[in-house]
Amino acid sequence: MTAILILGVDPGLNNCGWGLVLSEGSRLSHVAHGVIKPPSHQQLASRLHDVFQGLSEIIDKYQPQEAAVEETFVNSNARAALILGQARGVALAAAARSGLQVAEYAPTTIKKAVVGSGAADKTQISFMVRRLLPTAGEVTADAADALGVALCHAAHGGFKRRAGA
Amino acid sequence: MTAILILGVDPGLNNCGWGLVLSEGSRLSHVAHGVIKPPSHQQLASRLHDVFQGLSEIIDKYQPQEAAVEETFVNSNARAALILGQARGVALAAAARSGLQVAEYAPTTIKKAVVGSGAADKTQISFMVRRLLPTAGEVTADAADALGVALCHAAHGGFKRRAGA
Repeated sequence: MTAILILGVDPGLNNCGWGLVLSEGSRLSHVAHGVIKPPSHQQLASRLHDVFQGLSEIIDKYQPQEAAVEETFVNSNARAALILGQARGVALAAAARSGLQVAEYAPTTIKKAVVGSGAADKTQISFMVRRLLPTAGEVTADAADALGVALCHAAHGGFKRRAGA
Repeated sequence: MTAILILGVDPGLNNCGWGLVLSEGSRLSHVAHGVIKPPSHQQLASRLHDVFQGLSEIIDKYQPQEAAVEETFVNSNARAALILGQARGVALAAAARSGLQVAEYAPTTIKKAVVGSGAADKTQISFMVRRLLPTAGEVTADAADALGVALCHAAHGGFKRRAGA
């Protein structure tokens, strides 16, 4: 059974969550998680570079084989979409820097994979992430979302099983 | 008179324009310009990394002292704002990677600085950029916009004069 190390990312300019899950067949285990918090007094460009740099260092350290990011739903708030897009752009670029394939999952797909219902709320995601990854310990909401994306990617069989499906 | 090399960027996922202008007091001269075109068959993450990498290489090669990007106006199209935000995020991060301060200018400010009217259209920007920088030669619209942002930053005296104003 090949083990695949999956990086999940919940992009954000103030709090960029990341989580690493090892997937060996149906066995899932927690490897690491955290939140990148660029100092808010810096110029926008520097904060974005902090996200890029932080994720690059995590990728260099843990060497995940695959990455997954939540698909962004754009509601009517174009200003919020632009700000989120900026953080998301650097997160995707950091993953691609190391040649990682990046999967994208809709929020409902992630909720369904982690909680069993597409209508689950954030609290349920955190709860189930801690249940599925009991060794994770304390997990903030942003890191839980990132671990949730990684769990979703594992549940979908990663890129290999998807490509072979 | 101190010479300041200014990098202007017009972020985009398909066409990311860049332009370098040397500002010595009231004298402006063209240094280089171009357009980064990430191959469209690649995954989104790789295309974003191409923009980051392309701008990083330009910055490493020419060593500009300051950078300027057009402020993004968000209209009601949140989807377009997200896509533009992603390209803009990596452009800003690439500038910050080398410690560059990044100025942002509203489109009307740029038009006013380059053409003299905030209501100028794209064709007029291209025309005036070629007039102001006669040695630039052929300049595509994306590169002209990037050179226009750099010219606007120069017209506003860069960071030094602005800070001292």
